Amino acid sequence: MSQPSEQYDVLVIGGGPGGYVAAIRAAQLGFKTACCESNPYDDPKGEPRLGGTCLNVGCIPSKALLHTSHLFELAAHDFSAQGIEVGAPKIDVPKMIARKDAIVTQLTQGIKGLFRKNKVTLLPGHGRFVGREGDTWRVAVGEKTVAATHVIVATGSKARHLPNIPVDNQVICDNVGALKLQAVPKKLAIIGAGVIGLEMGSVWRRLGSEVTILEAAPQFLAAADPEIAKEAQKLLTKQGLSFAFGVTIDSAEVEGDGVLIRYRTADGAEQRLAADRLIVSVGRVPNTDGLDADKVGLTVNERGQIVVDDHCRTNLPNVWAIGDVVRGPMLAHKAMEEGVMVAERIAGQAGHVNYDAIPWVIYTEPEIAWVGKTETELKAAGVDYRAGKIPFLANGRALGMGAGYGFVKMLADAKTDRILGVHIIGPNASELIAEAVVALEFAAAAEDLARICHAHPTLSEVVHEAALAVDKRPLHF
Amino acid sequence: MSQPSEQYDVLVIGGGPGGYVAAIRAAQLGFKTACCESNPYDDPKGEPRLGGTCLNVGCIPSKALLHTSHLFELAAHDFSAQGIEVGAPKIDVPKMIARKDAIVTQLTQGIKGLFRKNKVTLLPGHGRFVGREGDTWRVAVGEKTVAATHVIVATGSKARHLPNIPVDNQVICDNVGALKLQAVPKKLAIIGAGVIGLEMGSVWRRLGSEVTILEAAPQFLAAADPEIAKEAQKLLTKQGLSFAFGVTIDSAEVEGDGVLIRYRTADGAEQRLAADRLIVSVGRVPNTDGLDADKVGLTVNERGQIVVDDHCRTNLPNVWAIGDVVRGPMLAHKAMEEGVMVAERIAGQAGHVNYDAIPWVIYTEPEIAWVGKTETELKAAGVDYRAGKIPFLANGRALGMGAGYGFVKMLADAKTDRILGVHIIGPNASELIAEAVVALEFAAAAEDLARICHAHPTLSEVVHEAALAVDKRPLHF
Repeated sequence: MSQPSEQYDVLVIGGGPGGYVAAIRAAQLGFKTACCESNPYDDPKGEPRLGGTCLNVGCIPSKALLHTSHLFELAAHDFSAQGIEVGAPKIDVPKMIARKDAIVTQLTQGIKGLFRKNKVTLLPGHGRFVGREGDTWRVAVGEKTVAATHVIVATGSKARHLPNIPVDNQVICDNVGALKLQAVPKKLAIIGAGVIGLEMGSVWRRLGSEVTILEAAPQFLAAADPEIAKEAQKLLTKQGLSFAFGVTIDSAEVEGDGVLIRYRTADGAEQRLAADRLIVSVGRVPNTDGLDADKVGLTVNERGQIVVDDHCRTNLPNVWAIGDVVRGPMLAHKAMEEGVMVAERIAGQAGHVNYDAIPWVIYTEPEIAWVGKTETELKAAGVDYRAGKIPFLANGRALGMGAGYGFVKMLADAKTDRILGVHIIGPNASELIAEAVVALEFAAAAEDLARICHAHPTLSEVVHEAALAVDKRPLHF
Repeated sequence: MSQPSEQYDVLVIGGGPGGYVAAIRAAQLGFKTACCESNPYDDPKGEPRLGGTCLNVGCIPSKALLHTSHLFELAAHDFSAQGIEVGAPKIDVPKMIARKDAIVTQLTQGIKGLFRKNKVTLLPGHGRFVGREGDTWRVAVGEKTVAATHVIVATGSKARHLPNIPVDNQVICDNVGALKLQAVPKKLAIIGAGVIGLEMGSVWRRLGSEVTILEAAPQFLAAADPEIAKEAQKLLTKQGLSFAFGVTIDSAEVEGDGVLIRYRTADGAEQRLAADRLIVSVGRVPNTDGLDADKVGLTVNERGQIVVDDHCRTNLPNVWAIGDVVRGPMLAHKAMEEGVMVAERIAGQAGHVNYDAIPWVIYTEPEIAWVGKTETELKAAGVDYRAGKIPFLANGRALGMGAGYGFVKMLADAKTDRILGVHIIGPNASELIAEAVVALEFAAAAEDLARICHAHPTLSEVVHEAALAVDKRPLHF
């Protein structure tokens, strides 16, 4: 075993949201900390970039494109009714993409700055387990080997690909290519009606694509509350997204400048779909590529996840794993909270993550956000609950924004009135969910939120009214 | 005393946010309830309109215009950088105003529907006290007299005018005229840099007006936290609003198609300002016009407010007063909460309003919102506190929205860590404040919010980071 060139208290493998947050928190707690990262993404100098999938080819760039495309759509379809005269807008796709890239660059450089400020050492290179020497782990990072008392694995996830569909990120794209198309495809096919499919489908539809989304599951957004999923499907279909459920994909081949997809419908009928571009967004799989987990006996389950307990401990001493590479939802904020927890556990503190109060967000328009249990889950668990549901149509702020669609639904225990779930589809749902998460963390009753003053006029009044509606005394509906 | 034609358990005088909510809640609690209103505002049939100043000539119409003008500004100055090509936008002011009017009409009709649903009788006509017969109040409503066991006075407020400045709502406007200008004034003067002045100034500046705001006070937004006020002044000035503080207005006269304002600067220099339109927004005064308060001995103080206790009881038995006509901030949501409280008190319940947890919002861009104590208040009270301040510049969602400006500041007790105030200037501050209000109501520590998962990427992460910053351990700054 080669001698380690450097010795750390904590080494984090992977510089995504879970990893860089774990590293910063560990350093704040006084540990000599390093974080290794090898992926340059599109860095012009080829240097490794921090922020992982989320910042480089996920949450952040997609939100930038969703913002631009939303404004484009308002300009095309909504401005006139408001008295704003602009004619038919045109989109300069390369400029839109360049703006998105500039935001990503600014933020990834910002994390490097945070590393300097918090005295985290950035080690460029791919991390892989070498072995254990006494109480110390040896990890190879690129060409060199470093020693670390604690190792936090935060290697994230990668796009799931389909066996017979070769992703080239030109014509057939996963999330990476979908975020840098240089022109609006006339016809865009998407396989997978999950978060990424819906968000990317929305972006390109707003800019003019004819979008068809093929989904293997028989139903839409199975993880969401069924009423939310139904409303989302209705609104997104009305916007022009075309869905097919229960399909089986047979093949997708590049033909000429486009792609030909062969699939079978739910009732077995063979179909062909010709499109200019195809996005494959059928989920993500944990990434342990080149980690040499087996070499040190790190337990990885049949789904490719590193096995951890509630505190993100693996089966190996002082080896922890967080984020997309372990169980639980693949959400950046979940990974971040796990990063904080692990750093604090290493410091002997009582860091923990409340997995029952992690919000979900889908950034379509309207946005979809929820926290806690769905009606499906409550019914399955035999919980007696009351529901309060209020549409945004009755809300002055929503009407002012031209966004009087969707609703807030609050679910509370029928006996104790404790809030069990809050489900929002509507304008700014991503921000409105924050008060619901705080309420859940404080084990609030619906009556508590009903008695808390909400600023007028705001969208948050719909959350307030939903709480009142749990007790069948809404004031504005 | 004429015989009453109708007898109610509860009569609410005034159909604004405080009044109509009080009436709905009283009816929900089983009381035979009426609400009288005489103001038709701009109703085409001249029928009384519910919703009061807020809905008809205040919060709601201003938000509609702020939305349209914000989009107009984005189209003019921001679209190009995003790759959206629209050329120079033009505004059709009458169309913008008509859309705003349609929203107001929809919502005011909606309240009529809520009255029907909740079985509240709408009495068209001006309410005035006639006297008391046994345990029953007599109130004249227009031509008839009704009897009521309880009377809730919710007569609101009216724009303060200046003695030497005649408001015609054509050239010299208060809030009423400012919301229905039919063209963009080339030069717009505003007296008063309060909420209404800033919001109306923002609307018309975005649409092309050259806006000058004259303020008598020596400083800007004295009620706000000083750092917030400073940031707001900086950003609004940068946008093109021109401010003069400490001025004394001598006169304003219509001259030709415009108006000439004579004023003296803080150092006494005489100035003239010629403008096409003038908006006078120097605050609002409680409205007890034609109520005949003195006839029944209802105590009104030297500021024109009906005197009430913490539960909105007046000096007269079974007479209550709520909203802008009593002490406390002139905010619609404060009035609504008082309306609920009074209805529940009448029903023998324990309704109350936590006046320490009422949020304030100013809908400029960026928005300004706060709840709890300012640094000025804490210093004056000798409270030892810690502050956490985080800019939106470090937030991915804000950058995606092109809104990386402003900050969140959280103030917490230095010993107990209890949150004492949250101050936000930034994108969507109006919605972000909701979680802070919930936290305040639960007597949360900054550490509580620091340990609550916030969805990524959202603006609410800046609130999260501010909580972390109270303990000097921000993760993203």
